[in-house]
Amino acid sequence: MKTIRRSAFAALPSALLVAAVLTATIARAQDPLPSWNDGAAKQSIITFVDKVTKPGSPDFVPAPERIATFDNDGTLWCEKPLPVQLYFVLDRVKTLAPQHPEWQTKEPFASILKGDVKAALAGGERALLDLVMATHTGNTTEEFEQIAKDWIATAKHPKTGKHFTAMVYQPMLELLAYLRANGFKSFIVSGGGIEFMRPWTEKTYGIPPEQVVGSTVKTKFEMRDGKPVLVRLPELNFNDDKAGKPIAINRHIGRRPIAAFGNSDGDLQMLQYTGAGSGARFCLYVHHDDVEREYAYDRQDHLARLDAGLDEAAAKGWTVVSMKNDWKTVFAPEKK
Amino acid sequence: MKTIRRSAFAALPSALLVAAVLTATIARAQDPLPSWNDGAAKQSIITFVDKVTKPGSPDFVPAPERIATFDNDGTLWCEKPLPVQLYFVLDRVKTLAPQHPEWQTKEPFASILKGDVKAALAGGERALLDLVMATHTGNTTEEFEQIAKDWIATAKHPKTGKHFTAMVYQPMLELLAYLRANGFKSFIVSGGGIEFMRPWTEKTYGIPPEQVVGSTVKTKFEMRDGKPVLVRLPELNFNDDKAGKPIAINRHIGRRPIAAFGNSDGDLQMLQYTGAGSGARFCLYVHHDDVEREYAYDRQDHLARLDAGLDEAAAKGWTVVSMKNDWKTVFAPEKK
Repeated sequence: MKTIRRSAFAALPSALLVAAVLTATIARAQDPLPSWNDGAAKQSIITFVDKVTKPGSPDFVPAPERIATFDNDGTLWCEKPLPVQLYFVLDRVKTLAPQHPEWQTKEPFASILKGDVKAALAGGERALLDLVMATHTGNTTEEFEQIAKDWIATAKHPKTGKHFTAMVYQPMLELLAYLRANGFKSFIVSGGGIEFMRPWTEKTYGIPPEQVVGSTVKTKFEMRDGKPVLVRLPELNFNDDKAGKPIAINRHIGRRPIAAFGNSDGDLQMLQYTGAGSGARFCLYVHHDDVEREYAYDRQDHLARLDAGLDEAAAKGWTVVSMKNDWKTVFAPEKK
Repeated sequence: MKTIRRSAFAALPSALLVAAVLTATIARAQDPLPSWNDGAAKQSIITFVDKVTKPGSPDFVPAPERIATFDNDGTLWCEKPLPVQLYFVLDRVKTLAPQHPEWQTKEPFASILKGDVKAALAGGERALLDLVMATHTGNTTEEFEQIAKDWIATAKHPKTGKHFTAMVYQPMLELLAYLRANGFKSFIVSGGGIEFMRPWTEKTYGIPPEQVVGSTVKTKFEMRDGKPVLVRLPELNFNDDKAGKPIAINRHIGRRPIAAFGNSDGDLQMLQYTGAGSGARFCLYVHHDDVEREYAYDRQDHLARLDAGLDEAAAKGWTVVSMKNDWKTVFAPEKK
């Protein structure tokens, strides 16, 4: 007994140390969203997660049904002054131009080669589609994956000079981690190209390729030297924007999300579809009102308008995050 | 010290008990596929799983890349005398007939209403597509989910009188569980309708809706009484068969599987695509050669031919499972 008692006393200081460490850990655990300022937005997230995960809660949702969907551009990473994939298009036009002498005089390519992006985009959706098809197709899926991977590893934001993957929002990374720790499965549901995103979403967001939904081109199965490949064809298969988002969610996921996150009217139908399910639901808009640390744009923006969405959020009590007031920090530190 | 030594001795019998239990558990763990007869097919599966999961093995594959794809009809459950979804079509035609008086004289519906399925199917793919569109669309995705769920809960196999979900193959259920226990993520990739399968695959196979890939119809986002719904349109969106399978795998999963399982030439391109990746790969055909316990069909079958696939399996050394010789039992006991 003596031995045991002595051991018990001897253990005391380290027990105190363990207790101190535990307390610190719990304090951190009590704030799963340290880059969010305390306020209604942060509290609404925590309240929702608590009630759907607490066994016995009337709003409890079994883990397999905890599906969350996130827009990407402007919701998880910066989309200004232009969406990242558009910089990829511009670089690809320059890379491919030597193989296309006709682009020197053919729009929208000619304007891009002259450095006039605005003139190139004046052609609207048709011009954009032409640009995407000319720069994203004609290769195999594996070739394109490598092209996207190489580009994202080197390309830099025109204003900050940082890699685009360093222009992801730290508060949203914390939110993704918090949801994951609470048994949620999060999907990206973006208007962007599915195969442009997949090469880097796992490393950047912890979201694996099979949880990335986006716009697609048609592909063709072909044998090359006895090896099967998928060739990317210059034909749009699906435009994953606006009403396309709930359609793609149903097709890819097959369950209605219980939480959805966006930042523009292009996400409105996804939020409506999510919010209309039975049981507890959570819809959130990131509102870009931080001209100092990022950008400020909403009702008048041409590429990522948030107008009808703001009205509906107010009417339905959805969470609207003020980037300026609700986020302690905006950008995540760059991953090595 | 005395106290401690006495406790150590006192603990011995229970330690022996624990050891005995552990040994039994390990013995069971050593046969993860108890419904498979010992032989080359079973051994090939275990050898593959061992080498891709053993850390330090030259063939080691990190868990997130352990993607396996399974055909459904004839690979996971019985597809004879007709594929299960076709029985659903026949029942739906009868249910909907009162709303379609024109079907009494219009093919392929008229033949079905007279009970002559063979005549109805004589119209080939066109007739089949007409039948599927007439019986699977015009409702919302939620309505259709309920219809499929209700049907699968009650419909019975014409020969055995068992529920169709009791006509799933016990050895394949064990294989799915074995792969899951080894960090694999398994997807169904079926020519069948994605929304016909999703309502029951989680309960039956442990495969959640988001891991089910199949044929799809187009859907339309619509507001009904202020609530968003997706309406199923009578237009094929994607036929997930043959060359469609690798295309759908790339679109839904975004990674090339390292293992693929099928039973007909409709699965051949999926197996080719899987087998052609770098590193360790595993391709398996279930060969229906068990006329006593199930059905026997291959090169001459009209609905699920296995002909080119058998030749390629032999040439490439893929595993071909003889249902008759490799499976101790065929069907799983019915789940309550």
